[in-house]
Amino acid sequence: MITKSVFGNAIFSDKISVALGNVQFPEGPTNLYQPIRYILSLAGKRIRPQLVLLGADLFGDTPIDEVVPASVAIEYFHNFTLIHDDIMDKAPLRRGQETVHQKWNDDIAILSGDALLIKAYEQLAQCPAIVVPSLLKTFNKVALEVCEGQQMDMDFETREHVSKEEYVNMIRLKTSVLLGGALEMGAIIAGASNQERSKLYRFGENLGIAFQLQDDILDAFGDPATFGKQIGGDIIVNKKTILHILLKQELDVADFALFTTILEMPASKSESKIQQMKELYQKYAVLDKANALKEAYTRRAYASLDEIEVENRRKEDLFSLADHLMNRAR
Amino acid sequence: MITKSVFGNAIFSDKISVALGNVQFPEGPTNLYQPIRYILSLAGKRIRPQLVLLGADLFGDTPIDEVVPASVAIEYFHNFTLIHDDIMDKAPLRRGQETVHQKWNDDIAILSGDALLIKAYEQLAQCPAIVVPSLLKTFNKVALEVCEGQQMDMDFETREHVSKEEYVNMIRLKTSVLLGGALEMGAIIAGASNQERSKLYRFGENLGIAFQLQDDILDAFGDPATFGKQIGGDIIVNKKTILHILLKQELDVADFALFTTILEMPASKSESKIQQMKELYQKYAVLDKANALKEAYTRRAYASLDEIEVENRRKEDLFSLADHLMNRAR
Repeated sequence: MITKSVFGNAIFSDKISVALGNVQFPEGPTNLYQPIRYILSLAGKRIRPQLVLLGADLFGDTPIDEVVPASVAIEYFHNFTLIHDDIMDKAPLRRGQETVHQKWNDDIAILSGDALLIKAYEQLAQCPAIVVPSLLKTFNKVALEVCEGQQMDMDFETREHVSKEEYVNMIRLKTSVLLGGALEMGAIIAGASNQERSKLYRFGENLGIAFQLQDDILDAFGDPATFGKQIGGDIIVNKKTILHILLKQELDVADFALFTTILEMPASKSESKIQQMKELYQKYAVLDKANALKEAYTRRAYASLDEIEVENRRKEDLFSLADHLMNRAR
Repeated sequence: MITKSVFGNAIFSDKISVALGNVQFPEGPTNLYQPIRYILSLAGKRIRPQLVLLGADLFGDTPIDEVVPASVAIEYFHNFTLIHDDIMDKAPLRRGQETVHQKWNDDIAILSGDALLIKAYEQLAQCPAIVVPSLLKTFNKVALEVCEGQQMDMDFETREHVSKEEYVNMIRLKTSVLLGGALEMGAIIAGASNQERSKLYRFGENLGIAFQLQDDILDAFGDPATFGKQIGGDIIVNKKTILHILLKQELDVADFALFTTILEMPASKSESKIQQMKELYQKYAVLDKANALKEAYTRRAYASLDEIEVENRRKEDLFSLADHLMNRAR
């Protein structure tokens, strides 16, 4: 069962749900295909496949059926990364349900993830033959960068120091390039020029960075009623978020000692840990700095979309989606 | 460092070594690309990339540089499966050296395997654009079947009963379709017709099955001086090989009890375990039956190559390679 999403353009959302629901996986081996059906049934917002359709729509009236397979490919790829990342992160839950490696085991999660990645390429191969080589190049580039980002994320966990630039580059690779790539693939199918494709890619890439920075900010400063996760979760596990990194580079000697003490506080004192860390964030105006950085990337994203030479009415859906993601009113 | 192979056509072998040696991987993240360089440096026989070049060569004089990227893609894919299979099999050694998950860790092996699979597609994308969609379809089909075969292999380990047909299908998927697919991809690039492509694919597929059956046979009955592994290794770990399966389906009640007793013998009695199991194999003429099955697939393979409508001199390299793999004199 594919749960219907109402995120983004409603017509596109329906198309994606139908397309995802229509793909038949072989019955067996059960341990290979059942985990794939399972992860795809834990419907997320389906934002990435939307981006492919919106990217194509921006440049004209390409028949939607020529775009849908690339849109499904991107959603498959995203779910492949979730299966494998969850193994590496030892995550027990995904979208409120058991992760694949938890429900089955690591071996099955490795192999069904592999199969889902190949299934993504199978979808790509169903796009019009004339655009397949170009789609393949963009998809490969982005897919490899996502792997690089995931490796950096893991490397950063055990590293003493991570700079702001390194951190932004990591989130760019791990999450943002896929948003840019999804949009660009839509543009490729619609026959956009290289220049327009690049502008659209940069819109997605910068918006993705801004969104990820916002996620870091909300984890500490979000509204508990709407955030959906425990406020301060990142602080409890000493995650090197943008707030953590911006704070660390500003601390004076005395506060650095305090910072180190806070990092070493045990799980039993998490309330106090969160509070003390947030006091340091306030003292060093870290929230303002993080918000400024987020705004800079948001502006770059919007500017890039502005520059694309198509009628403004065609950009409405993408601006709305960006507003929605960045909690902006226009 | 890529060790030069002298397997198959020497000119092609050189081309493959040079091509594999020429591909540059990014410096970082080190933990993503170093394992890839490592696995590729443990040079195997490079039989699969040879098959791509031989498959193209069969149908005319396609410029070799148009074929090499597909040949590298197949070698990358094969090495991707080795990295991930070794995690699942908890194998400490590969080609006499530490496996990737052993030398680094499971997480790094998962992710560098993923990256290598994507790198394989990157190579595919470098083939002439006109054949990319067709190559992609063949590659995806075979790649997915390899995953299915690996899952079946794992499933069979814990299953009570595996039939001869199920076993042959598993080895077909796990190892043989990739040989067929490698040849077929060469044929696609050379512009062969669908019919000729299929014949060449079936040659590779059947030869692969025969080779795998031979591997099972040699594990118990090979010459210790030339086999390279311990004779009887499969018997010690109760592996459901073709010999095991053919024996089990013939046993009378008394010998079935003996068979079960042998399976339960501990590692400390492995000499005796191997001897007793081989006595059962002899009593039920299992070696003859397995050889007959191997011969049937070998004949099918050769017949399929015979049927291809090109000059016989063009088939020489493939017949030689098949003879070499099957230890045949002609």
